[in-house]
Amino acid sequence: MAGNISGFVFRVTTWGESHGAALGAVIDGCPAGLDLTEDDIQQALDRRKPSHSTASTSRGEKDQVEIVSGVFEGKTTGTPISLFIRNADVQSSRYNDLKDVFRPGHGDYAYFKKYGIRDWRGGGRASGRETVARVAAGAVAQKLIAAAGIDVIAYTKSIGGIEGHTSGLLPAPDLKAKVRQNPLYCPDHRAAAAMEEKISTVRKEGDTLGGVVEILVRGCPAGLGEPVFDKMDADLAAALMSIGTVKAVEIGDGCAVAAKKGSQVNDPMDGQGFTKNSAGGILAGITTGQDIIVRVYCKPIPSIALPQQTMGMDGQSHPIEIQGRHDICVIPRIVPVCEAMVCLTLADHWLRQKANAR
Amino acid sequence: MAGNISGFVFRVTTWGESHGAALGAVIDGCPAGLDLTEDDIQQALDRRKPSHSTASTSRGEKDQVEIVSGVFEGKTTGTPISLFIRNADVQSSRYNDLKDVFRPGHGDYAYFKKYGIRDWRGGGRASGRETVARVAAGAVAQKLIAAAGIDVIAYTKSIGGIEGHTSGLLPAPDLKAKVRQNPLYCPDHRAAAAMEEKISTVRKEGDTLGGVVEILVRGCPAGLGEPVFDKMDADLAAALMSIGTVKAVEIGDGCAVAAKKGSQVNDPMDGQGFTKNSAGGILAGITTGQDIIVRVYCKPIPSIALPQQTMGMDGQSHPIEIQGRHDICVIPRIVPVCEAMVCLTLADHWLRQKANAR
Amino acid sequence: MAGNISGFVFRVTTWGESHGAALGAVIDGCPAGLDLTEDDIQQALDRRKPSHSTASTSRGEKDQVEIVSGVFEGKTTGTPISLFIRNADVQSSRYNDLKDVFRPGHGDYAYFKKYGIRDWRGGGRASGRETVARVAAGAVAQKLIAAAGIDVIAYTKSIGGIEGHTSGLLPAPDLKAKVRQNPLYCPDHRAAAAMEEKISTVRKEGDTLGGVVEILVRGCPAGLGEPVFDKMDADLAAALMSIGTVKAVEIGDGCAVAAKKGSQVNDPMDGQGFTKNSAGGILAGITTGQDIIVRVYCKPIPSIALPQQTMGMDGQSHPIEIQGRHDICVIPRIVPVCEAMVCLTLADHWLRQKANAR
Amino acid sequence: MAGNISGFVFRVTTWGESHGAALGAVIDGCPAGLDLTEDDIQQALDRRKPSHSTASTSRGEKDQVEIVSGVFEGKTTGTPISLFIRNADVQSSRYNDLKDVFRPGHGDYAYFKKYGIRDWRGGGRASGRETVARVAAGAVAQKLIAAAGIDVIAYTKSIGGIEGHTSGLLPAPDLKAKVRQNPLYCPDHRAAAAMEEKISTVRKEGDTLGGVVEILVRGCPAGLGEPVFDKMDADLAAALMSIGTVKAVEIGDGCAVAAKKGSQVNDPMDGQGFTKNSAGGILAGITTGQDIIVRVYCKPIPSIALPQQTMGMDGQSHPIEIQGRHDICVIPRIVPVCEAMVCLTLADHWLRQKANAR
Repeated sequence: MAGNISGFVFRVTTWGESHGAALGAVIDGCPAGLDLTEDDIQQALDRRKPSHSTASTSRGEKDQVEIVSGVFEGKTTGTPISLFIRNADVQSSRYNDLKDVFRPGHGDYAYFKKYGIRDWRGGGRASGRETVARVAAGAVAQKLIAAAGIDVIAYTKSIGGIEGHTSGLLPAPDLKAKVRQNPLYCPDHRAAAAMEEKISTVRKEGDTLGGVVEILVRGCPAGLGEPVFDKMDADLAAALMSIGTVKAVEIGDGCAVAAKKGSQVNDPMDGQGFTKNSAGGILAGITTGQDIIVRVYCKPIPSIALPQQTMGMDGQSHPIEIQGRHDICVIPRIVPVCEAMVCLTLADHWLRQKANAR
Repeated sequence: MAGNISGFVFRVTTWGESHGAALGAVIDGCPAGLDLTEDDIQQALDRRKPSHSTASTSRGEKDQVEIVSGVFEGKTTGTPISLFIRNADVQSSRYNDLKDVFRPGHGDYAYFKKYGIRDWRGGGRASGRETVARVAAGAVAQKLIAAAGIDVIAYTKSIGGIEGHTSGLLPAPDLKAKVRQNPLYCPDHRAAAAMEEKISTVRKEGDTLGGVVEILVRGCPAGLGEPVFDKMDADLAAALMSIGTVKAVEIGDGCAVAAKKGSQVNDPMDGQGFTKNSAGGILAGITTGQDIIVRVYCKPIPSIALPQQTMGMDGQSHPIEIQGRHDICVIPRIVPVCEAMVCLTLADHWLRQKANAR
Repeated sequence: MAGNISGFVFRVTTWGESHGAALGAVIDGCPAGLDLTEDDIQQALDRRKPSHSTASTSRGEKDQVEIVSGVFEGKTTGTPISLFIRNADVQSSRYNDLKDVFRPGHGDYAYFKKYGIRDWRGGGRASGRETVARVAAGAVAQKLIAAAGIDVIAYTKSIGGIEGHTSGLLPAPDLKAKVRQNPLYCPDHRAAAAMEEKISTVRKEGDTLGGVVEILVRGCPAGLGEPVFDKMDADLAAALMSIGTVKAVEIGDGCAVAAKKGSQVNDPMDGQGFTKNSAGGILAGITTGQDIIVRVYCKPIPSIALPQQTMGMDGQSHPIEIQGRHDICVIPRIVPVCEAMVCLTLADHWLRQKANAR
Repeated sequence: MAGNISGFVFRVTTWGESHGAALGAVIDGCPAGLDLTEDDIQQALDRRKPSHSTASTSRGEKDQVEIVSGVFEGKTTGTPISLFIRNADVQSSRYNDLKDVFRPGHGDYAYFKKYGIRDWRGGGRASGRETVARVAAGAVAQKLIAAAGIDVIAYTKSIGGIEGHTSGLLPAPDLKAKVRQNPLYCPDHRAAAAMEEKISTVRKEGDTLGGVVEILVRGCPAGLGEPVFDKMDADLAAALMSIGTVKAVEIGDGCAVAAKKGSQVNDPMDGQGFTKNSAGGILAGITTGQDIIVRVYCKPIPSIALPQQTMGMDGQSHPIEIQGRHDICVIPRIVPVCEAMVCLTLADHWLRQKANAR
């Protein structure tokens, strides 16, 4: 109820702070008999690490995962899978200046109002580092649903207003390859170059950039998702909106449907199935077997180098200038997190549907 | 887990089909001692009823609520509050023609794939009528949080591309009055007139319209919402995306932040608090005490009078023409549902926060 | 979280007070396609009704169930099944004298301390009448697991110290027949006669009697139950201890194992399976495929006709004499409730295990 | 849903196997601002360790706990508290002989039937070592409720049929001292000596012993526990029955009430409160403010040195002789586990009640 547990059947608890001893996740509900190694998870964590792209911080995040339970002789046993990641390269002293003020755009003020106490070292639990645990757990979910033929691919759709062509019609493996070849995880490599350029400029300005991530799910069977409150789109929206930076989520044609007519939005069918996919693969909250398409809109990272005005713990106005090693654009770090959150949601609903079937 | 239960502390179970005997909700977790009458709930249900606006169906939905448990001598007792609404004016025979085909844009196909069986009378559980139970339960939530000084107001922001001025700066009671004076629940009465006109035109075309609903929360204390998975914005997104017609949800500046810089999006503070509200009242998933602002983008009602192509239960292509009494524009019916879902989410988090406090 | 919801997959919410308008249950998570009629449920409710045995009250409880959702053309649809039972023959005025005092052995004092308010009419939510909803929901669970070959039979093991021979070795249908032939639900009809006699004597004394109910499960597959917290025996214990009158629960050899040696308690196996069943069909919290055997120890009904001493709402000592139509011995009323609770627990775990399997 | 998560508000996830890399618990929902050190937890873990009493194994379990998140500058922050305990002195090779057979009285067969795969090293997740994580989490719960004035004391009531006098009337600190002075955790030191002697005899026979643990709760406020399914006694029963060795749970007068009359079992009240405590501090599932008294009946450890007959993975009958370092009597190891489970249950309900209050 305190919000660090997600899912019904594939249930994930994450824990850990930015500058604490370690971070981790416990998966309770992964079926027995799945092949699983640390390397499966490490690959996903490595994709989340700061890359050599211009977008990222110079922090040396190691993020070495250890599977400390739930796997025996290379297979899951059905008991909880505990994933453990020691924090390394933690320089809390850099945050000493921020101890007594609330950083604009961050959770500092809200956390203090909530708990009356706050771990000010790098944002504590509210830091983006928390997503390490999501990515680790998501990698296990991805292995599970991949075995069921479900492919989840997230990529950069736009950064700072520069939009890439999403190559939506490529076969899944080709799209995935194109995404991973690019440090910004943008399958449109020409657009990616323009994005890199914009990032360089904005870095010099001491500012930061947001963007849009698109997530494409292929091979998802029809019938996943539950009526009324736990609709597939509702659960995807929650899963993605729970990522710190996300301020909007849309499914299929999303926002655009509000200005259209029913005859434009309805997806007709024939004997072969649907003849278009405005719905983004979900009707009445339940998957239709078509591609699921989701987009999330991310705000720029709030840690900018420019001077800002804020409130201190003393209730007074204070100027603030944030030092430290921060990303300029969150998008390439968020892409693997979006992928993880969608995998977790699908894994959970895939198992839920198995319980449903009489 | 089958998706008809919502909330942790203020936990609501809804049940009922479009053409079944009745619909209802059970609230488990409403604190004892709250004044509650059937009239409190009936008023909310009446706002959800088809109005005399051009937007709505001519069905005679009575929606008379009965409180059958949990209230004694006008006060809640702390035990489950069961709300019971008999279905009236049910003409299932109108749906006989639709028994063997999947209506485009509806849940018919997805439900059949999920359950292998389907109540074809008016969409069954997937019908918009299901929201009666949400509105009933939401009215109880609204009473609870109103006592804590929290005001929730939903209104029509746009219909068919015609946007109203949202009067965001009016005091809550004035805004609420303006909203309720208008059959489309649009506080900008001039825009509303244009919307009515557009609805009339589209009705003649046999088509339908979507739109945007905005929800404004005033008086919400800072500190509600939980870190990581159960963030306030995540739970609001799920609650609203779970409404059948919603395809996108945005918080505060929403989609627009993706193309902005950090210096534009961050909300500075001074000794008095925040000096602007791009965040929409939520930072790191936790309320800041500012106004919460959420917008949802709704697709047009899929039941259009125009001829369409679809698949039948026989797996063949079939033409389909939908008769029946249907709304042209869902928005005025959805406004009270959005209000209800936000009230349910806030009531739950308000009680959760009480458990948190040591 | 307010305690009126039970189960994970086969999730049941019950509601209603002794002297309210109605009682009911909502089942969220019953698979689609199960044959279900009101008669299936009515039969179970009829078994719970006051019988013509000497043990029971003369209240005319009708308990006519209506299925108001979730069933279409005689089959479950996968959506919530709402069961509705109007209260009849409610004579609240009989309780007027008890408005200002806490009845000994009842929940009156504890409820008042918890909620600060209390529905004093017949115990409100704390009344044994609440179990009507459990029995109704349990009948649906029983249909579901019966289709999987699982038989659940509860019966009277002892009343007021008079113990029956439990006929543990009879085939399930024969045992069930013997149980249902007897108004005290005791398969040992000779012991039942002695019990009836004791009940008559105690009735004249103005006193009441407790007893022991045994529940036998046959045909349960191995592998149900979850490690650590949600063990099958833990969930059965909670389900049965949640019945108002139950003060102890034991599995298999139960209390007796505490004074035995390991060599006496261990159940050896051979190539055919287990060669005895001290464990009562559960090892490490997971079913073994053997008969599950559970016994519950029930206290006498606290509403005795003898004069007692108690506390009033005024915090003063008061004499109390309870009038009204009360059972002398709860056991025959509790037998169907125990059966229902075990069916609910098994149905839930049976569906959970389906989700587990990869 | 896979059973390794417990509690609603004070929610604990445990993980780890007997011979895996580590064991641990994650507490999600501990309020912020509680003083907490590793030493608080270590003391509880040390009480669970094999003592120098005759009852225990010679395994060198170190059980050094590390708090790896959720505590900052000596206080809880409201975020998840992750407790991490490396396994040491693991000699899995001792179990090689048991790889292909199911040990009688253990979960081997049931686990294999459930998962189709099994970690045969020392019982894996079904091992009693799993309780290390419960005790660690329980120590945090105990700190939380102690601050609210609630005292939980578990002790040995009987071993192998030798019953101790439970000193129920001693003040809490004196009773706790007497319990902890004795290696068998029996406050009746004379009875404890007889128990030690019996354990010595049974060790020589190659057999094992069970016993009874009593748990006494003092200072618990009235009003904890929820109606119907989540009654305090139901949740205590589940919590305690979930301990591997427990086969029966009773509250207050427990089993004995079944043979008594209502006039004997009812606890009268006067202006000062209850005048006796047959109920064991719980009426209608809700605490009354009196002492809570619970007893659990534990079976002897199934790992006996005597020859037994069992089934192999090949479905054939096999003789089995269990080597290895095993406890003779589980009771002193189980006492701290019972204490932990009761603390976890009370902490959860104490926080639940805070959410309830309007």
